[in-house]
Amino acid sequence: MNLVDIYVQLKGDVEYIERELERSMDARTMELYQSSTHLLKAGGKRIRPVFVLLGGKWGSYDLERLKLVAVPLELIHMATLVHDDVIDDADKRRGRETVKAKWNNRIAMYTGDYIFARALNIATRLDNPRVHQILSKAIVEMCKGEIEQIRDLYNWNQGLKHYLRRIKRKTALLIAISCQLGAIASEAPEERIDSMYRYGYNVGMAFQIADDLLDFTATEKQLGKPVGSDLRQGNITLPALYSLWNGGRDGHRLRSWIEEGKLNEHIEEAIALIRGGEGIAYSRALAGRYLDRARAALADLPDNATKRSLLEIANFIVERKF
Amino acid sequence: MNLVDIYVQLKGDVEYIERELERSMDARTMELYQSSTHLLKAGGKRIRPVFVLLGGKWGSYDLERLKLVAVPLELIHMATLVHDDVIDDADKRRGRETVKAKWNNRIAMYTGDYIFARALNIATRLDNPRVHQILSKAIVEMCKGEIEQIRDLYNWNQGLKHYLRRIKRKTALLIAISCQLGAIASEAPEERIDSMYRYGYNVGMAFQIADDLLDFTATEKQLGKPVGSDLRQGNITLPALYSLWNGGRDGHRLRSWIEEGKLNEHIEEAIALIRGGEGIAYSRALAGRYLDRARAALADLPDNATKRSLLEIANFIVERKF
Repeated sequence: MNLVDIYVQLKGDVEYIERELERSMDARTMELYQSSTHLLKAGGKRIRPVFVLLGGKWGSYDLERLKLVAVPLELIHMATLVHDDVIDDADKRRGRETVKAKWNNRIAMYTGDYIFARALNIATRLDNPRVHQILSKAIVEMCKGEIEQIRDLYNWNQGLKHYLRRIKRKTALLIAISCQLGAIASEAPEERIDSMYRYGYNVGMAFQIADDLLDFTATEKQLGKPVGSDLRQGNITLPALYSLWNGGRDGHRLRSWIEEGKLNEHIEEAIALIRGGEGIAYSRALAGRYLDRARAALADLPDNATKRSLLEIANFIVERKF
Repeated sequence: MNLVDIYVQLKGDVEYIERELERSMDARTMELYQSSTHLLKAGGKRIRPVFVLLGGKWGSYDLERLKLVAVPLELIHMATLVHDDVIDDADKRRGRETVKAKWNNRIAMYTGDYIFARALNIATRLDNPRVHQILSKAIVEMCKGEIEQIRDLYNWNQGLKHYLRRIKRKTALLIAISCQLGAIASEAPEERIDSMYRYGYNVGMAFQIADDLLDFTATEKQLGKPVGSDLRQGNITLPALYSLWNGGRDGHRLRSWIEEGKLNEHIEEAIALIRGGEGIAYSRALAGRYLDRARAALADLPDNATKRSLLEIANFIVERKF
């Protein structure tokens, strides 16, 4: 089932945003155009524009205004992907060569910078400083999240709060402001804007926890990469942390490998142990709790097609993961 | 002679901006704070804030408003330095280790992104969308310039227009908007804003041409790197281009090395040839012409201390190069 099928009523508008995304790249600088639209053409769920459009339904829906936040939000997401690829020396994304592999690190670095700047520049066509504040603040937070994630590599002394703050910055924030900025751009009432932010935040948290879970529970074929890739790369996520916190025989084995610096030697056992441990059920329950909160955030909204779409999308993007 | 000595009347305000620059970095994320203030502490001429303050003198001068563009402009400049260091694999800047060398590419990449975003975020505290448009547009142009510079490496088929467009994006634009935004932030009359932009643009062009010239005319000791470093790295600047355009015996020798792919073998001869060629005088004259235009841009402004400072700075930052 394709996400687009869920919200058929937005199809035309999402396609319009898609064309605007492509138009947003400067065709006159050909190398830049090619490198920046390369990723664009690889497609994607365009989930952020969809949230903008749904947020826009709570005020006076105007696609010409909404595109001025929908396009920037998708561009910001794309810019982070381009920069992730530079850093991680990745060679494939969405089945295509990355910008970095096809051109080089220099081009990819500045392409990411270009896309970030273009995103913020497009948003300035909306004569509303609040929009610019929210967008630029979100990028600041996302960068902090990226740096924290580097600091947290192989760090097993993380509490739940620490993990949650990291995934907020990494994922939930951009989804939250997509929902919020759609409502702001359409001049929806403040309480609708708040509801949309809370909905987006909670969906984003649920989504990232589910994604971290999937890295252990899915098959290599489903993932397109080895099971437990996060752990192999030192990115310690909730299922792994919970196994450690939970103690017991498995927790102690994990701890001793870590303390003796032998985790890499025992990586397959560690992954099997986490897969079979209680961190899986715990993470699933926590994702479910965020999903409940996302639904609760919509409680005061009138029961209409937009609300039903938001509820369906929340279920879809989180639950398909299990 | 220190640049600060020239405009003593700004000393206190420049020091205030300096403290605000340091405060603008988030101390709570310690790694980030250290990496981002590392470059800050290395100092610099703070020429962009100085231009902002001088631009601000043409309207109602308010340091609390001016800092909201002065700090972002210096941060944008710093972010480009951090990203240049990642890309160029540089290990030293201003006599200190680069962020990249002291931490690593990942940290430096996201530190640069963080500084960019922080810059734009600080500017949003000014409730003036025009400021945000100008700033984000400038970053877009600067990124294009960076990508063009990569494309233009070892490209000898550049005309003068091409070279000038590249240095505009690389250097002149940020100086131009520093002057312009200072005037805008202090709500100076439109014609003053225009004059300041033109002044800054022409000073910036003169400055970059002088800098490109210096790479051939200065000594290794003065430069802190080998003479002709630009050419050695494939960055082809005006003195080199002019030698080629100018033809004659030297131009033909240069062309034959290029066409035979033997420039690197003959790099010392090529540098000596350019140093002794007419490209030097041509570049010097062109820098002088831009300097004249910078002075002319100030012609309609009242003859006061601010104008005299602008004239002195223009002379200083360009002519000390020769």
